[in-house]
Amino acid sequence: MTDHQGLGSPDHTAFDLHQKLTAQGEKVRTLKSEKAPKAEIDAAVQVLLKLKEDYKTVTGQDYKAGSPPTSTIVSNSNGPAVEDGDDQVDPWNVSTTSAKGVDYDKLILRFGSSKIDQDLIDRIGRITGQTPHHFLRRGIFFSHRDMHQVLDAYEKKKSFFLYTGRGPSSGSLHVGHLIPFIFTKWLQDVFDVPLVIQLTDDEKYLWKDLTQEECYRFAVENAKDVIACGFDVNKTFIFSDFDYMGMSPAFYRNVVKIQKHVTFNQVKGIFGFTDSDCIGKVSFPAIQAAPSFSSSFPQIFNERKDLHCLIPCAIDQDPYFRMTRDVAPRINYPKPALMHSTFFPALQGAQTKMSASDPNSSIFLTDTPKQIKNKINKHAFSGGKDTIEEHRKYGGNPDVDVSFMYLTFFMEDDSRLEKIRQDYTSGALLTGELKKCLIETLQPMIAAHQERRKQVTDELVKQFMTPRKLDFNF
Amino acid sequence: MTDHQGLGSPDHTAFDLHQKLTAQGEKVRTLKSEKAPKAEIDAAVQVLLKLKEDYKTVTGQDYKAGSPPTSTIVSNSNGPAVEDGDDQVDPWNVSTTSAKGVDYDKLILRFGSSKIDQDLIDRIGRITGQTPHHFLRRGIFFSHRDMHQVLDAYEKKKSFFLYTGRGPSSGSLHVGHLIPFIFTKWLQDVFDVPLVIQLTDDEKYLWKDLTQEECYRFAVENAKDVIACGFDVNKTFIFSDFDYMGMSPAFYRNVVKIQKHVTFNQVKGIFGFTDSDCIGKVSFPAIQAAPSFSSSFPQIFNERKDLHCLIPCAIDQDPYFRMTRDVAPRINYPKPALMHSTFFPALQGAQTKMSASDPNSSIFLTDTPKQIKNKINKHAFSGGKDTIEEHRKYGGNPDVDVSFMYLTFFMEDDSRLEKIRQDYTSGALLTGELKKCLIETLQPMIAAHQERRKQVTDELVKQFMTPRKLDFNF
Repeated sequence: MTDHQGLGSPDHTAFDLHQKLTAQGEKVRTLKSEKAPKAEIDAAVQVLLKLKEDYKTVTGQDYKAGSPPTSTIVSNSNGPAVEDGDDQVDPWNVSTTSAKGVDYDKLILRFGSSKIDQDLIDRIGRITGQTPHHFLRRGIFFSHRDMHQVLDAYEKKKSFFLYTGRGPSSGSLHVGHLIPFIFTKWLQDVFDVPLVIQLTDDEKYLWKDLTQEECYRFAVENAKDVIACGFDVNKTFIFSDFDYMGMSPAFYRNVVKIQKHVTFNQVKGIFGFTDSDCIGKVSFPAIQAAPSFSSSFPQIFNERKDLHCLIPCAIDQDPYFRMTRDVAPRINYPKPALMHSTFFPALQGAQTKMSASDPNSSIFLTDTPKQIKNKINKHAFSGGKDTIEEHRKYGGNPDVDVSFMYLTFFMEDDSRLEKIRQDYTSGALLTGELKKCLIETLQPMIAAHQERRKQVTDELVKQFMTPRKLDFNF
Repeated sequence: MTDHQGLGSPDHTAFDLHQKLTAQGEKVRTLKSEKAPKAEIDAAVQVLLKLKEDYKTVTGQDYKAGSPPTSTIVSNSNGPAVEDGDDQVDPWNVSTTSAKGVDYDKLILRFGSSKIDQDLIDRIGRITGQTPHHFLRRGIFFSHRDMHQVLDAYEKKKSFFLYTGRGPSSGSLHVGHLIPFIFTKWLQDVFDVPLVIQLTDDEKYLWKDLTQEECYRFAVENAKDVIACGFDVNKTFIFSDFDYMGMSPAFYRNVVKIQKHVTFNQVKGIFGFTDSDCIGKVSFPAIQAAPSFSSSFPQIFNERKDLHCLIPCAIDQDPYFRMTRDVAPRINYPKPALMHSTFFPALQGAQTKMSASDPNSSIFLTDTPKQIKNKINKHAFSGGKDTIEEHRKYGGNPDVDVSFMYLTFFMEDDSRLEKIRQDYTSGALLTGELKKCLIETLQPMIAAHQERRKQVTDELVKQFMTPRKLDFNF
């Protein structure tokens, strides 16, 4: 599983300058609105002009408020993956040059998946008797595979199970990491089905400069955050690969079965592995594939092999499951269905990558209310104009404004969000006011998460992570 | 682990003809010695001449008694492995064009191992206070790596452990399969150390057209034959990969650790894998490597990581352990030491391959005394001359005579074996008499094995295959 939900390949210097310029613009704006002494205003304007000059030197472009630099994306992918124009999406790299982020319609075409259209959203609402989650209504989960088949079967009283996961590359999650879990919890609630959550500590050990002990510790730490999302211990099994592989002969048997039916050529094509990659990476895709099959969890599914699986995940994980769907019929297992989410942008904008090592690239689940406020005010890329006058006159651009993007993820009230969008676009709502909305949305949400996480005891983690029967009879 | 102990790539037509010619020669000889009617003798000689003609057509060579055809070796290896002149040796293919078998001195040079010389044999005798096993005295275990280090440590009261294995590709073993186990048992007896035995059912599933269930069943069946060799349940752990991987988080952690430190390029170079090989094959070498490290068996070694390992195996398995020894220092584990055996020849001669699907290619552990007698009399390639007169005059060639080769493996009495060699070489001992010696050696040996195997209960197999502490304290 990916360890990021952000977009890749920043050109930090240009972005830093852009951020400084935006901040300086706001400073000038504030000084003017506060009727500050002319000398002070002039000094601030001089700084602004100097920054604009530097910006042009570095980027070769004129500074435009609300339009971050279109940097040359330097990819460190080791493979072909999917590159569309300037978008690149694979399980280890996601990058784009567009401030709006990846072009998801093109990705659907390229990946051969299907758009989650209004019909499907309505059908989910109808079948579950629940208002579809705002991630569905707002196109955050935007793509799927075989979702209608899952619903067809469900209508015929055939159950399925949910599978999602996380690559534990650090102990601290940011808000973007919650997206698949928030949505998976909603799916579990409305469909009332079992859920398995894979923590790919083995993958992180193979890909990162980390020890097995560190990866495992991160897995357990991450499990606490996952549990804090509110999952029901009686319906959910969370597992570390390092642990579960050594506890379940059925899981290993499925891994080997998959490994027999996938060639090096295939993983080279799908993931871009090269001859210099270690054999652990080469064979890992089978380990992420195996939980798609109910026979990997005989304790939960009473050794049944025929249960369908639905995988909610970020679109960058799709290559794993394209491979899985390709293998499934050849080993007599049902193909898993999928629901794909868009990526969660970094505070600095949809082209930059969130990084666990850069605390300013996102809001972390451990941030204090003050940190949340400061980060958003200081780092959230703004789609607003340079001066209040200009902003009032021309309006802001919510499509590139990170605060607005974050609100689409976390503000549940549709009509309020729409009002914000309109007001920001018209210029009635200033950047500072928009940021305030986001701060007031995230502060209580994260405080509540921290409160729930505190309640997660080691004992409870152990319960979640013990292979066992769940509250479902198969 | 290999599933054969024989030599590869026969040219069946030529060999069949050679066998027929040898048989027909014996028939002519018998008729003459029995003073049969001249017409009958003439008819038999006509058949002999026709066969000689056919033989020349097929092979382009004149028939020579005791010298099987030097066929063109058609290798079905998927890799470079080691080819020396006409010898090829890798874990899946062993072939040679020499009737004497593979040139082992050249293999030592090529593999970079060391010869087991008289000094080492004497040292083993001295340290253990036991006569070195006849496999050592007769050069059947002929090559080693780091054996002196194992003995140095042993002299300083540092213990080590033994590791060997088998690839369970069929339920029935032939006598050649016993070689590593007979020797390993001797080593365990004289050094009094723990032993782990890996049954690579996962490998056989990956390489063969077999189901996982079949491979696992073969593993359990093979375990019974292994146990029948007389291993002590308190000192020996036998495991199927399918089972143990799913029972031991420590084993999987070591497998992944190895997989992180070996690239596809490396396994391509060592094993000859190609891009068309499945990722299971590509990553399997790590699974055969992992038991070389004591930390893979925390239950036996009390989580110690520093114990040295000694691996007795056929030389074709060396590529796995060259790789293992290369990885070991990079993951802070000691390199395993090795002792390599020669290959066990097929009844038809050192160039032909024993095959589980051809019951006549070897003596199986399930053969009746009558089957043993018939197979040896009918199929054991003879180094004798065409006629009794010639044989008496010129003598036989024990170096290509399969019956004599088998006796070097199974006749424990050195002086008796040497007498047979001399008498056969001089012509005093006829082929029929030599075969009789072998029959009389194998019949009771195999009957005794069958008797011991009958005593192996499912309960005992389960005991051997349960991860547990052994009668050693670490």
